[in-house]
Amino acid sequence: EALLAEAAEPGAPARPCPCPLPSGDTALSRLVRRLLSARRSLDLCLFSFSCPQLARAVQLLHRRGVRVRLVTDAQYMGLHGSQIGRLRHAGIQVRHDQHSGYMHHKFAIVDRRMLITGSLNWTAQAIQSNRENVLVVEDAEYVKAFQEEFERIWEEYNPANYRFF
Amino acid sequence: EALLAEAAEPGAPARPCPCPLPSGDTALSRLVRRLLSARRSLDLCLFSFSCPQLARAVQLLHRRGVRVRLVTDAQYMGLHGSQIGRLRHAGIQVRHDQHSGYMHHKFAIVDRRMLITGSLNWTAQAIQSNRENVLVVEDAEYVKAFQEEFERIWEEYNPANYRFF
Repeated sequence: EALLAEAAEPGAPARPCPCPLPSGDTALSRLVRRLLSARRSLDLCLFSFSCPQLARAVQLLHRRGVRVRLVTDAQYMGLHGSQIGRLRHAGIQVRHDQHSGYMHHKFAIVDRRMLITGSLNWTAQAIQSNRENVLVVEDAEYVKAFQEEFERIWEEYNPANYRFF
Repeated sequence: EALLAEAAEPGAPARPCPCPLPSGDTALSRLVRRLLSARRSLDLCLFSFSCPQLARAVQLLHRRGVRVRLVTDAQYMGLHGSQIGRLRHAGIQVRHDQHSGYMHHKFAIVDRRMLITGSLNWTAQAIQSNRENVLVVEDAEYVKAFQEEFERIWEEYNPANYRFF
């Protein structure tokens, strides 16, 4: 399934639920619903993460007992509006690169069976203003390749492996 | 098929061909081979395009008579190292957005049957230094969604539709 998000998508209709998660049928609410379908694990590999609604969804999963792991880019995680500090503070495991190049992936894997990937950085600017694509893929071959990439990065960015000069 | 490019990939072996296209078995040479398989059309939707080797491959296809169309982001097409001017000069049709938001897609469609998409901007920095992913997809459902997005953008960015204020 390909979810193609366009700038100026119509807003969500009035909703009775008072929770701070997006609802209705916007690209963002569809993305959140996919994430909230996680029951056991959520592996996140995100260049940039500043969207509060997506951070809330990730925190909710963490509180539910889903195992959340997050790898991100060292140069972007400290930028204004980044949600990384908040997620770390909530007890979510976060690892980051140590390179001058960017950790430029933007993908999530739900329960090791659903891959969510595309051009979309998890920022409010991207969701509100950009032309972006997000692919939701359950084909095992693709999921496996990204899961393996995640595990490689997770190990490589393990603080126990940091090199000191 | 998922092509996962990693920084510091081993270089190509010595090669007899004097052409300026990448060869060997690097992620870049595999990407170029996919592009050069085009026989009729190549639709490019690229946020940023500054990689000379990829620009050469696109020009080669244009010279072979493949119909190349390119849409790009207005704010990035004028940056240092951009290949957009060179491709326009070679006679390739280029259209760009008129928005403050980014045209942030990074995909190519070969002969309306093969989708190449991912996190990778077509820049030398991304190819040499970043952690990136590129998906090659021939599943008709995905190709159709991206082809439709391409046609929407191509029409929307038609200069005949520019609004003057």
